[in-house]
Amino acid sequence: MLTPPITGAETSRLAELIEALPGVEVLTEPAAMEPYRRDRANDRAAAVPLAVVLAERTEDVQAVMRWASAHSVPVVPRGAGSGLSGGASAIEGCVVLSTERMRALSIDAPTRTAVVQPGLMNAEVKAAAAAVGLWYPPDPASYAFCSIGGNVATNAGGLCCVKYGVTTDYVLGVEVVLADGRALRVGGPRLKDVAGLSMLKLFVGSEGTLGIITEITLRLLPTAPEPRTVVGWFDSSEAAGAAVADIAARVRPSMLEYMDGVSINAVEDELAMGLRRDAAALVVGRSDDRSPAGEEVAAMLEAFERHGAVEAFETADAATGERFAHARRIAIPAVERKGSLMLEDVGVAIPDLPRLIAGVERIAAERDVVIAFIAHAGDGNTHPLVVVDLDDPDMVARAELAYGEIMDLAIGLGGTITGEHGVGRLKRPWLVDQIGEDLLEVSHRVKRALDPAGILNPGTIFAA
Amino acid sequence: MLTPPITGAETSRLAELIEALPGVEVLTEPAAMEPYRRDRANDRAAAVPLAVVLAERTEDVQAVMRWASAHSVPVVPRGAGSGLSGGASAIEGCVVLSTERMRALSIDAPTRTAVVQPGLMNAEVKAAAAAVGLWYPPDPASYAFCSIGGNVATNAGGLCCVKYGVTTDYVLGVEVVLADGRALRVGGPRLKDVAGLSMLKLFVGSEGTLGIITEITLRLLPTAPEPRTVVGWFDSSEAAGAAVADIAARVRPSMLEYMDGVSINAVEDELAMGLRRDAAALVVGRSDDRSPAGEEVAAMLEAFERHGAVEAFETADAATGERFAHARRIAIPAVERKGSLMLEDVGVAIPDLPRLIAGVERIAAERDVVIAFIAHAGDGNTHPLVVVDLDDPDMVARAELAYGEIMDLAIGLGGTITGEHGVGRLKRPWLVDQIGEDLLEVSHRVKRALDPAGILNPGTIFAA
Repeated sequence: MLTPPITGAETSRLAELIEALPGVEVLTEPAAMEPYRRDRANDRAAAVPLAVVLAERTEDVQAVMRWASAHSVPVVPRGAGSGLSGGASAIEGCVVLSTERMRALSIDAPTRTAVVQPGLMNAEVKAAAAAVGLWYPPDPASYAFCSIGGNVATNAGGLCCVKYGVTTDYVLGVEVVLADGRALRVGGPRLKDVAGLSMLKLFVGSEGTLGIITEITLRLLPTAPEPRTVVGWFDSSEAAGAAVADIAARVRPSMLEYMDGVSINAVEDELAMGLRRDAAALVVGRSDDRSPAGEEVAAMLEAFERHGAVEAFETADAATGERFAHARRIAIPAVERKGSLMLEDVGVAIPDLPRLIAGVERIAAERDVVIAFIAHAGDGNTHPLVVVDLDDPDMVARAELAYGEIMDLAIGLGGTITGEHGVGRLKRPWLVDQIGEDLLEVSHRVKRALDPAGILNPGTIFAA
Repeated sequence: MLTPPITGAETSRLAELIEALPGVEVLTEPAAMEPYRRDRANDRAAAVPLAVVLAERTEDVQAVMRWASAHSVPVVPRGAGSGLSGGASAIEGCVVLSTERMRALSIDAPTRTAVVQPGLMNAEVKAAAAAVGLWYPPDPASYAFCSIGGNVATNAGGLCCVKYGVTTDYVLGVEVVLADGRALRVGGPRLKDVAGLSMLKLFVGSEGTLGIITEITLRLLPTAPEPRTVVGWFDSSEAAGAAVADIAARVRPSMLEYMDGVSINAVEDELAMGLRRDAAALVVGRSDDRSPAGEEVAAMLEAFERHGAVEAFETADAATGERFAHARRIAIPAVERKGSLMLEDVGVAIPDLPRLIAGVERIAAERDVVIAFIAHAGDGNTHPLVVVDLDDPDMVARAELAYGEIMDLAIGLGGTITGEHGVGRLKRPWLVDQIGEDLLEVSHRVKRALDPAGILNPGTIFAA
């Protein structure tokens, strides 16, 4: 992409920004800004920012927003850049505000809370909690390289959500910088608090469109018991989907994941751990229920068998169980080695899973593209991965059609276009089909109430 | 209270309202409206409505809101009238919109969800779920006589929240009628859904100020295991508070409740179950962890003993355990027999509980009023109950001072003025001291975005 020329007005505005940020690194050279133009969605429409600010303190974020308000410059907030919906794609002439250098953390064991800045990785928060015998549950598969700020901005999910809930369930408070530069404290280390509108829950998952989160107070739990792991191999995706629905209706596994044949083979190529390359589907379930009778484990195995599993067993030990969980976690990068991915995040009510799986298989056949299918099956949240060779324009066109058709399919089943990744820029055209014009209009009113000039991440969720 | 005269314009407006609601009961006689003027907070400032509408369908609620918008008439939504913050106090010339006749319910076991109308009691939802082996966790002590619609409107809590969360954690979707009469569907039976702003979570707990909820999709869980119950008797409130903080930092009880000497005696007057009348505090804990070693039970008993409990034991059987839970649930009505109550709902971080308890004791002494103290101690949410003889104006004045001072105390400790009852009209003057002017201003912008004419429950949360 050609770098557009910087105008004289832009040069003077830029000087003003840099002056407002003493000691803060501000990137303006195209080469330096290049890694900040896109997130992991690789949005081909990502443009060139005016500048990238590597904020270190809340006051830096406030200074950027005051400057941006004064000059009506759009600001694209960015965590670790691991987003999968293009919520951090740069737009022409914007400031990309990176929180990667905001990395303070403190844990208060007596209140079981952590106060963190947004730039820490999810895994770092987990590790700090574990060091004092506590647990931060939300676990996106990308937990090693996704930031806690991004997790809050997207209300990220993960593998444990099926029992332990999503990010918003663990956010007790935030500090957030508004479009006009004011910093607000919302909530705090109180487990129950209904004083006023639930503004806290509104900021969580708002993808940087309502404010920029600069500090988060997280609820922690005591360490969970060691889980037991069960594995079911199936020769049909339909049977595997039916087994999942059966389990989800009756017990509360702490994990219930699904992989199809394409993803099983891609993972086996990486790990060589002896996965069944001929299977149509693999279901991995976990239970951390401490009942001595192990009813949950028994119920899962029984469901696998009732729905015709080719093989169903409990893993011999915790290490083997963890290997299967790891296999599921690396499925996206493993499939990514086969080609560029267009990542879906569609969700349906669990009994509709078999219909969703069948529909995606039909779309793959009709559009002649490979679509790997993995899922947080226990909560109906799935990731069809459309594999695409970017050097084949015809395939790209077919993949783009498939990408939209999968969302149409989910909407038709009463589902969602995004369960945990966010709308970003890439899924925005489908949002209205899911939530309807009235709800979109009302949401837009809330957006305008908080960001009247529309400078906060324009194009994400709402049309710019 | 004198009934204000109805003007000719009001008569004609009223006729128009009645015409818009064929087949719907509309009360206009003062005697018939009397039971609808106040909720359980007994707000003495409650005024006389123009009419009370007993809506039966979403369309009725829409008709009321269209009419109210056209004539700028305030509408006060009302569930079962069990609210404790005056959120359903009638205001002069308003329409009270009661949802008590909206009582449809359906349960879908495969998706573990219930779709309910707002007029059902919480206990009815629980019972319907239990009939198919499922569980709706949130359990306000008033569950027999509080409506599920009111629970959603206030984001109600209860005894199980310490482990199982509050109402908002179980709301997957709502149908809500806006100020302009449009009915919106927000969310649905999807366990994970991040498509767009979290408008769902914003409506939950909005106390009728943003819309009127006419249908709710609830998440259900499989039935919880039978809990084990532990009891600790203390001769000092400080020691009991310290034991609670110790337990909450280390384990996840499924209940952790506190009663002081005043409430113990009031409950013993009712139940004659042999409670220790000389104790300063009673702590009742429960564990539904299924570990055969019973580590949670052991940890609670050990904490009771370490902090000097006079007596600490696990109850002999489930029935005895349930009697202790019941004792705690009836504490408010039991204390109410001693006089009228001004009910508090203040919360703090758990390690600050002893300071909150001591501060309330000091306020009671200084203002020469009886204040019973009960608490959902495990999540720091407390109910100081100021006992007042309404025929003693001097005592009423002292009680009102104490009521405000308790909220000031909680705010001073970094806590909340309301953990689960809502702000309503009675706690509104203190809201700004807790959340600050900026957050209140931003919240008000959201309110105006959704209800520009300010006809939805004016005076609740926001000044009318």
